[in-house]
Amino acid sequence: MYNQLTEEIIRQIRAVSDHVTTGEDINPDYAKDEMPIYGTKMPELAVQPRSTEEVAAVVKICYENNIPVTPRGAGTGLVGGAVPLYGGVLIDLSRMNRIKSYDMENFVVEVEAGVLLNDLAADARSRGMLYPPDPGEKFACLGGNVATNAGGMRAVKYGATRDYVRAMTVVLPTGEITHFGSTVSKTSSGYSLLNLMIGSEGTLGIITELTLKIIPAPKNVVSLIIPFTDLETALATVPKFKMAHMNPQAIEFMEREIILVSERYVGKAVFPKDMDGQEVGAYLLITLDGNSEEEVGALTEKAAELVLEAGAMDVLVADTPAKLADAWAARSSFLEAIMEETTLLDECDVVVPVNRIADYMKFVNKVGGECGLVIKSFGHAGDGNIHIYQCSNDLSRDEFVKRVDRFFDIIYKKATDMGGLVSGEHGIGSGKIKYLADSVGETNMALMEGIKRVFDPKMILNPGKVCYRI
Amino acid sequence: MYNQLTEEIIRQIRAVSDHVTTGEDINPDYAKDEMPIYGTKMPELAVQPRSTEEVAAVVKICYENNIPVTPRGAGTGLVGGAVPLYGGVLIDLSRMNRIKSYDMENFVVEVEAGVLLNDLAADARSRGMLYPPDPGEKFACLGGNVATNAGGMRAVKYGATRDYVRAMTVVLPTGEITHFGSTVSKTSSGYSLLNLMIGSEGTLGIITELTLKIIPAPKNVVSLIIPFTDLETALATVPKFKMAHMNPQAIEFMEREIILVSERYVGKAVFPKDMDGQEVGAYLLITLDGNSEEEVGALTEKAAELVLEAGAMDVLVADTPAKLADAWAARSSFLEAIMEETTLLDECDVVVPVNRIADYMKFVNKVGGECGLVIKSFGHAGDGNIHIYQCSNDLSRDEFVKRVDRFFDIIYKKATDMGGLVSGEHGIGSGKIKYLADSVGETNMALMEGIKRVFDPKMILNPGKVCYRI
Repeated sequence: MYNQLTEEIIRQIRAVSDHVTTGEDINPDYAKDEMPIYGTKMPELAVQPRSTEEVAAVVKICYENNIPVTPRGAGTGLVGGAVPLYGGVLIDLSRMNRIKSYDMENFVVEVEAGVLLNDLAADARSRGMLYPPDPGEKFACLGGNVATNAGGMRAVKYGATRDYVRAMTVVLPTGEITHFGSTVSKTSSGYSLLNLMIGSEGTLGIITELTLKIIPAPKNVVSLIIPFTDLETALATVPKFKMAHMNPQAIEFMEREIILVSERYVGKAVFPKDMDGQEVGAYLLITLDGNSEEEVGALTEKAAELVLEAGAMDVLVADTPAKLADAWAARSSFLEAIMEETTLLDECDVVVPVNRIADYMKFVNKVGGECGLVIKSFGHAGDGNIHIYQCSNDLSRDEFVKRVDRFFDIIYKKATDMGGLVSGEHGIGSGKIKYLADSVGETNMALMEGIKRVFDPKMILNPGKVCYRI
Repeated sequence: MYNQLTEEIIRQIRAVSDHVTTGEDINPDYAKDEMPIYGTKMPELAVQPRSTEEVAAVVKICYENNIPVTPRGAGTGLVGGAVPLYGGVLIDLSRMNRIKSYDMENFVVEVEAGVLLNDLAADARSRGMLYPPDPGEKFACLGGNVATNAGGMRAVKYGATRDYVRAMTVVLPTGEITHFGSTVSKTSSGYSLLNLMIGSEGTLGIITELTLKIIPAPKNVVSLIIPFTDLETALATVPKFKMAHMNPQAIEFMEREIILVSERYVGKAVFPKDMDGQEVGAYLLITLDGNSEEEVGALTEKAAELVLEAGAMDVLVADTPAKLADAWAARSSFLEAIMEETTLLDECDVVVPVNRIADYMKFVNKVGGECGLVIKSFGHAGDGNIHIYQCSNDLSRDEFVKRVDRFFDIIYKKATDMGGLVSGEHGIGSGKIKYLADSVGETNMALMEGIKRVFDPKMILNPGKVCYRI
């Protein structure tokens, strides 16, 4: 249904962009994201545009010629979202990486979509400001963060990426340039096309520029490592923080096994494994913030009392930059550590109500065993978002895929039954369409496909993703 | 293009609903909302359903017979959104008013769409919880609040209604029942149909049930009345609060004139009018919250220092329930007070970047004078949302409408030029479509109309609103 690129079309694209590669010259990374199990495919032509106008000119040619277009940032996705499944043109936005300007009266920053999260975070911090969204992967592009509504550690207090997007410049699949939203924080001005774009994974338009909300950075931060005998006791403490008017910026949970794997990988053991002869079964890793040492000190004391009363085995306080780095080193390396120890990997990013996490994890571990899979899990206890990794170890690819399919069918259904959703922050991409359809139903899928057709009448933009199977 | 109701269709509707009125029996309030200047019209039939299924059954009959359907809550809108411009069937959701259940581990409450904001606020507070959205009109239905993404006083700290909607049950224009979102706080599971519904003003589907986020109520609250010689000095202090790591839950501004009008109306003078022989020109009304007397006391002291240094004439502290009620009495009565003193009224609800409010207000007052209009303004200084009222006083209706049209053309354009938007919280309804189109452009309007057609292929639901002019 799509056309292949011809010499003439390539000539036309080269006429509007100086940043084109074709054939053998194309970066082989463009064939995949970080979860190649969902399929890999090379584009026929790749562009690294420097401006919105350049993106628009290239897309316009593709639209006229019915060529599929796949936008891509840093390629750090985990659901195959940036893979050009139908070949065609890949638009790599990573060179549109300017932090354009700060507006310190309206508390926003204007950036190009290819700016890395890590670069904005550091730049904002150097001005005393915080860009709160904090996904595990710091070297993703902000455009990709917005396209997947990336969440991360601090979502429990500060919200997900959606809550920090004020406005965007978008190239529509026709090549037209438009703008959604504005600098202002509050609006009731027609359907929220801005919110529709957030989480649309590059299927409705290509985000090229963003106006993002920032906040003054809290002055003091402390993290607590809290060991428990078991995950249930650990998770039962989570709602208590809110009711005690404490609002941790992060509440992560992790089981014993993943800490062992990750500390092997980083080569440093920080988390306690046994307390007074009892084995630690699970941990909470909590971060509290405030604007004075006294405030954070008082919060720490209150939190320690709360968790000890709720059955914690101990509380380890990390209150210096070095100790904070140590406390988070293992957590930050889970994905790499898991990858290091397995040949093939698949992942599930479900979200369930916070008070169902413990039950859900028990169920997942049981089903994992029944399916003959090695499972490693961790997640965001404050918002019910769980990352469940399946490792192939010695399994053949076919056998692994077969077992994972069965496992997913069961655990995604269970998440939906518990009132959860397919993905908390990674998105749907090409890898999770089936589970999304099972979860939200055909009526909602049809509404999504209808919306897709409104934005993209020829269905050329990032085909085979989210809601549209060719 | 629509059909009229026949006896047979009325019979069919009566067969699925026991809550039908027709002809003379229909409540005359159904012809209008609180801004009748945008047109009034009676429906041919009205229903007060008790359940989602009853709504769905009625809508299905209308869909099959091409009858327009207009959903309505308490009818407190200000842009004509709930007026059945094309007659047909009106669905009044105000009898679906049950607060169904609280979930204190996931911090959500399930309600029917007809629950009044005031009732949820009081019920939540009796459990130590806060439903943060706080629009000026407390006797609106929550379904209407969601349909307009209502904002209100506390949006500067806590966000607008959008930020508190986790899930909803919706009757689509076809009569099909569906669900968007879930209890969970974080999601990246396909296009956000939930966020598309929020602010869609009853044009994409009828919201019948809601899962709303609540938070533990802050224990202590204090308000400050802060007089200034002029509005510019008052508004210049606003960004300073954030930079000082203070986060007031409300920062309202008001000019001298509106306080005089409103205090006449409520019959009590609380705001100082002169200080040491100098006339007060403008006020900030600020609310700070915290979880102990000490915390709020320290915040109050810090805020007082900050505003006095920034040129405030004085700081009046309201820290008891009686004083708090007094401080907010005038602010809460602006609309009623203005209505009392004029025959005809029109209103504009623009939002501009916070640092442009003062300039914008100067411009508005100048243009108001040039257009021969009496203007009364106030607004949310923390988020740039300004309510500008035009009073007819002695003008004829024709002359008033002519002058207001000219005034609107100029001031809406200016708001857009300053990076603002048409509406901060009231929505578009039938009254503001032209200004929305001027502001966001034809491309975005076409996307909205396309989306409308996906949800509502026969265009029967709330026609003539937001983006769709017949």
